[in-house]
Amino acid sequence: MNKPVIQKPIKVENSPIPGSRKVYETGVRFPDIRVPFREVALHESANEPPVTIYDSSGPYTDENFTPDIEKGLPRLREQWIVDRGDVEYIEAREVKPEDNGNVSEGALAPQFPNLPKVIRATGTKSVTQYEYARAGIITAEMEYVAIRENLRRQELGRTEAAGVIRDGEDFGAEIPDYVTPEFVRSEIARGRAIIPANINHPEVEPMIIGRNFLVKINANIGNSAVTSSMEEEVEKMVWAIRWGADNVMDLSTGRNIHNIREWIIRNSPAPIGTVPIYQALEKVNGVAEDLTWEVYRDTLIEQAQQGVDYFTIHAGVRLAYVHLTAKRVTGIVSRGGSIMAKWCLAHHKENFLYTHFEEICDIMRAYDVSFSLGDGLRPGSIADANDAAQFAELETLGELTQIAWKKGCQVMIEGPGHVPMHKIKANMDKQLKTCGEAPFYTLGPLTTDIAPGYDHITSGIGAAMIGWFGTSMLCYVTPKEHLGLPNRDDVKTGVITYKISAHAADLAKGHPGAQAWDDAMSRARFEFRWQDQFNLALDPETARAFHDETLPKEAHKTAHFCSMCGPKFCSMKISQEVRDYSAALTDNERADIENGMADMSQKFRALGSEIDVPAE
Amino acid sequence: MNKPVIQKPIKVENSPIPGSRKVYETGVRFPDIRVPFREVALHESANEPPVTIYDSSGPYTDENFTPDIEKGLPRLREQWIVDRGDVEYIEAREVKPEDNGNVSEGALAPQFPNLPKVIRATGTKSVTQYEYARAGIITAEMEYVAIRENLRRQELGRTEAAGVIRDGEDFGAEIPDYVTPEFVRSEIARGRAIIPANINHPEVEPMIIGRNFLVKINANIGNSAVTSSMEEEVEKMVWAIRWGADNVMDLSTGRNIHNIREWIIRNSPAPIGTVPIYQALEKVNGVAEDLTWEVYRDTLIEQAQQGVDYFTIHAGVRLAYVHLTAKRVTGIVSRGGSIMAKWCLAHHKENFLYTHFEEICDIMRAYDVSFSLGDGLRPGSIADANDAAQFAELETLGELTQIAWKKGCQVMIEGPGHVPMHKIKANMDKQLKTCGEAPFYTLGPLTTDIAPGYDHITSGIGAAMIGWFGTSMLCYVTPKEHLGLPNRDDVKTGVITYKISAHAADLAKGHPGAQAWDDAMSRARFEFRWQDQFNLALDPETARAFHDETLPKEAHKTAHFCSMCGPKFCSMKISQEVRDYSAALTDNERADIENGMADMSQKFRALGSEIDVPAE
Repeated sequence: MNKPVIQKPIKVENSPIPGSRKVYETGVRFPDIRVPFREVALHESANEPPVTIYDSSGPYTDENFTPDIEKGLPRLREQWIVDRGDVEYIEAREVKPEDNGNVSEGALAPQFPNLPKVIRATGTKSVTQYEYARAGIITAEMEYVAIRENLRRQELGRTEAAGVIRDGEDFGAEIPDYVTPEFVRSEIARGRAIIPANINHPEVEPMIIGRNFLVKINANIGNSAVTSSMEEEVEKMVWAIRWGADNVMDLSTGRNIHNIREWIIRNSPAPIGTVPIYQALEKVNGVAEDLTWEVYRDTLIEQAQQGVDYFTIHAGVRLAYVHLTAKRVTGIVSRGGSIMAKWCLAHHKENFLYTHFEEICDIMRAYDVSFSLGDGLRPGSIADANDAAQFAELETLGELTQIAWKKGCQVMIEGPGHVPMHKIKANMDKQLKTCGEAPFYTLGPLTTDIAPGYDHITSGIGAAMIGWFGTSMLCYVTPKEHLGLPNRDDVKTGVITYKISAHAADLAKGHPGAQAWDDAMSRARFEFRWQDQFNLALDPETARAFHDETLPKEAHKTAHFCSMCGPKFCSMKISQEVRDYSAALTDNERADIENGMADMSQKFRALGSEIDVPAE
Repeated sequence: MNKPVIQKPIKVENSPIPGSRKVYETGVRFPDIRVPFREVALHESANEPPVTIYDSSGPYTDENFTPDIEKGLPRLREQWIVDRGDVEYIEAREVKPEDNGNVSEGALAPQFPNLPKVIRATGTKSVTQYEYARAGIITAEMEYVAIRENLRRQELGRTEAAGVIRDGEDFGAEIPDYVTPEFVRSEIARGRAIIPANINHPEVEPMIIGRNFLVKINANIGNSAVTSSMEEEVEKMVWAIRWGADNVMDLSTGRNIHNIREWIIRNSPAPIGTVPIYQALEKVNGVAEDLTWEVYRDTLIEQAQQGVDYFTIHAGVRLAYVHLTAKRVTGIVSRGGSIMAKWCLAHHKENFLYTHFEEICDIMRAYDVSFSLGDGLRPGSIADANDAAQFAELETLGELTQIAWKKGCQVMIEGPGHVPMHKIKANMDKQLKTCGEAPFYTLGPLTTDIAPGYDHITSGIGAAMIGWFGTSMLCYVTPKEHLGLPNRDDVKTGVITYKISAHAADLAKGHPGAQAWDDAMSRARFEFRWQDQFNLALDPETARAFHDETLPKEAHKTAHFCSMCGPKFCSMKISQEVRDYSAALTDNERADIENGMADMSQKFRALGSEIDVPAE
């Protein structure tokens, strides 16, 4: 294979998040575990401990880390995996010209220069987290995610008081006050959670997807035949995790798929998902009818050996369901679903992903690639939501989940799509029932079709709701949905929007660690700690920039007002006065007021003027 | 009074919405009624009638209209009002220097040059829509809104088939298939809906706010002491209604309040709301303790005579409730609420808005100013949602609603604020019960506190949900919330976000006219009518710009793909093939397929290649 060189150095954003410091928590069972968090120190006047925030951004935001994209990230899981004694180094499948779309020499994306040795399970062993969990084994990955989910609440000594706020409606979820490694194990063993972590992706910082954990989000990147390059996709991946993407799917469909993917995986601390049928289709020159099980199988192995953490597999698009979509307003909108539907019809045969499902399981278990059972028949419009085609496929996904578990694989289930608000809960309820509580992973759903250019919002609404109802991971939608390939700004907007949806869902579910972040922000607001407000914001840069548009001076960072209301009309200022007044009351005085007996106006007036109002 | 001149000509955006045509529907009972709609004609290949969209933008988007800001809009309701024979022209209250904050001569905003004569009810008559409705009278305003709500569904001959889609969960609302003037009257008479339309705002295009009508949105504009000018505020008003604001609140708190308001009202086809306490406070130099009933009363009359359509009145902030906020994380966050709380404590007296409530009603009924009973104790953080202070005030608002109705006034109730998703429905249910089904008008609610810079989204989620549950009007939140005064871009983003929330709510409630818009968009998507997709978008300019970023050529406007997936991977294209195939089947063939008896692959392949894929 020829070896083109990189035309320009790949530059990724690797500054720390403004106002945050990277900190690490070590493991107890596995002392070499170092779980990253983002810590926001507050102004000393707050007299509060720093706020710990879940950190998906990887080492890139660590000021002590210097990224080397051509070398890739440290392979932190390598030793854990080898120590389990059930894998072997193997001869990697050789890269073939068609893996990169038979691209001509000049157009070939460079191969990643520091390839790891490929491993797989010894013999027919299953090396999945599911299999370990079933066997009662707590892995390093399990302890890692347990620490990660707790957000250092115990360590900060807020165990009883501020640390655990249980106020929510969880619709039958079973979220514990604190996550233990044993709880993680038991959730995985029950199929209710997965840790997507291919043994060939040792760079991954383990994360867990399940209804009883924090709601996660996925960002899609990937080039298409029309636009985008390898450098852009690596940059987008780093950019997406910086703002909060827990997982990243590489949905590339153009040429150079194999090589681009290698660069992404080697540099990604987040699990990487793909839809292998996209590459398989490229290998048969885009002719769906020419797809074969052999081409697909070879693609699964190719990608499993590269380290892809989960595969979207549209095995539920059965021949008999395809005609159910004919009368739909928008037919089949899943790319993978439509490819398989076309194949089924062209051959008038059952979907080969369905007929070969057990063989697929055998590949998945040998590398611990998680299933993301694709919803190829998801609705693409409000009109088609919750129809016969969609729910027929969901039933099949439930059957396949059972088979995958029997084979020792980790499974999650993909969901819609476009669904009006009143039909969202039915999706969640049906998925839980049909798929044995396997984690649900939904795209949006979009709650209306009328706003192209704003589908991060139409879908962010549905995502928050279905997250509350029980979806474990939300696949983001960017403002470019339905219109074009998202750029860097769109990726950020999509990620921030979905972090909002996921966090709103955590709050509503009553996740015990969620509200601490909101409360820290609210106290900072009430006390006019502007710098703390910026630092605590999901997007500190935008928060500060918006504030500074009208009040740019440093002095305004301690001002007891903003330009929205100006100093005289600031309610926070006035209610601070109310609070001071109330605090200054004796118990007797308070009782007298409640009984309408006392006139405390003098006392209040005496206090009222103490609040500092800086001159304009 | 001195008369400064306008420094620069005020320029408002008055181009038609791209791809839309302004059309008017005339009245039956009142033949001079002309109800505006926005009509989107579709490509001839669609073979569909044009889509009619609710149009809040006023004459500015009519290509036959030339705005003259110094003259103001046509006074279309003037004759209707005079014809009712219950009003008289009066000597207007004289404008006083303090009305404009005693601003120095050089800094005074110019007076509006074409002031209308002021009218009020003759004697002690009530001239409210509520009073007419109670008396069994159908007004021109009532027929106007009836026509407006129906979106020309009858006229287009889609009465039975496509025109009425009843699929939703309305939580006990009683939305009719078609809105008749009599239905409007009966809803207003029951207090379940209001038409905010001051008799001194004859420029207003009547609109209705109520649970059994389309969900409306309000945009806030207004200068503050720190920033913004009169010209900017008029431009913002026109800009806000252009993108879909049904109502506009002028929340100015700086100087020149009186003059700025006059310019806004005279040029606004949308109802204008204010919070009179803001101006009253300016008149006493910002010292809350110095507020008096007399100053406030005079301000109500001043604004009622200018034509303000609804007043936010914080009469529910009772002395006994104030101390309930002392332990809150964010105290009192309503500006009006905090002013009244401060007044109550400083004087240790009951809120004068509460003690003088019947006198306030007498002013409101004489001009038909609607009440917007303010939620001065709404929560300002997730931590404070649904607390004792909030719900105590809501009970009082329920009492006041009954008094206002007895006095013949129109009433709506303001609601929160910051509320996590699981606590939203309790707000709606409690409001309906406590306030006799008077329309609910909520700010957001924001579903999390962690995202300053994105609070249009944190709140758009809550707004969609509470709209679904029964809120009649949603007060927008812009990206600048908590950070500064919104600019033009922020206003647009806030309005579009809230149109999404409102429409998503209409869909989920099963509003019979709502889904037609989504379906038209979805069909355009499926058939690759890009131009139709742009034209049907809530924001046609952004939709087109996003598409053109990667595929700018005119030829791409008919391409059967976009840059997101490229031509080979376009699922819409493939599923069109599936549909063509299915349509080409005979009944026997279809039955054979369902029974697994037929191999139709030849037939499918023959059709599969017919779809046109333009070269890249």
